[in-house]
Amino acid sequence: MKKTLALLALAAAGAVTSLPAAAQFAKAEDAIKYRQSSFFVLGQHFSRIGAMANGKAPFDAKVAQENAELVAMLAKLPGAGFGPGTDKGAPTKAKPEIWTEQAKFKEHAEKFLTETTKLAAASKTGDLAQLKAAFGPAAQTCKACHDAFKDK
Amino acid sequence: MKKTLALLALAAAGAVTSLPAAAQFAKAEDAIKYRQSSFFVLGQHFSRIGAMANGKAPFDAKVAQENAELVAMLAKLPGAGFGPGTDKGAPTKAKPEIWTEQAKFKEHAEKFLTETTKLAAASKTGDLAQLKAAFGPAAQTCKACHDAFKDK
Repeated sequence: MKKTLALLALAAAGAVTSLPAAAQFAKAEDAIKYRQSSFFVLGQHFSRIGAMANGKAPFDAKVAQENAELVAMLAKLPGAGFGPGTDKGAPTKAKPEIWTEQAKFKEHAEKFLTETTKLAAASKTGDLAQLKAAFGPAAQTCKACHDAFKDK
Repeated sequence: MKKTLALLALAAAGAVTSLPAAAQFAKAEDAIKYRQSSFFVLGQHFSRIGAMANGKAPFDAKVAQENAELVAMLAKLPGAGFGPGTDKGAPTKAKPEIWTEQAKFKEHAEKFLTETTKLAAASKTGDLAQLKAAFGPAAQTCKACHDAFKDK
């Protein structure tokens, strides 16, 4: 069972785009905690860019870039935690549609990766206007996926 | 208060070595969850290297390198979550000594960063013997810090 789950998670990770091929979990609980943890860390860094993009914190190009690069890197992680059999095993807000509508979920995941990569590229310009322009669409991919696949 | 905590966390992050300068949290609970989350994600990737180093999983140089590079990157994160005032605010196994013995804690944190960086370098050689040689000391820095600063 352990091995099967790990192999399935591995297959799922490969399927969902450029997620690390090394994705494998001993049990569903670990996969759930892994995706929640990586999303939480990502969210902290993403919100720091948001504060600057929305004028709630002074713009610091270096800080923006550090955070955006972390976000782009961290964005590759949580997908691996959504393998088959990880719809339960620990408290989760993940909706069953993640596993019954895989094509749609995969589409959301790919948009998320695309926009966070664009955000990191924008942050490297050191230009607040470009950061703002890239932040909105990136934030929108979070919201769209949460609306479709995450319980309130 | 919020701003003070953020500034203190920022100062602490700067003090603990090359942690992201952007470290700042709205409240202690977020800092605690951040360090726990980043350690958990790191631990998952670290254990995959351990499985290969200890002969419990077949050695795959590419997978080892991917995981070791993630570990080296993730190792820079949790330190920022140990700023002043984050000894409570959410369930935590962090011992008070983290804040009363800062010099010692900092020393452990630096060793951890040094050894995980060495592990990533070793993983790039594609040589299992070098991976094994670097894994032991890296794992030892986890254990040493847990023994000194983490409740059972």
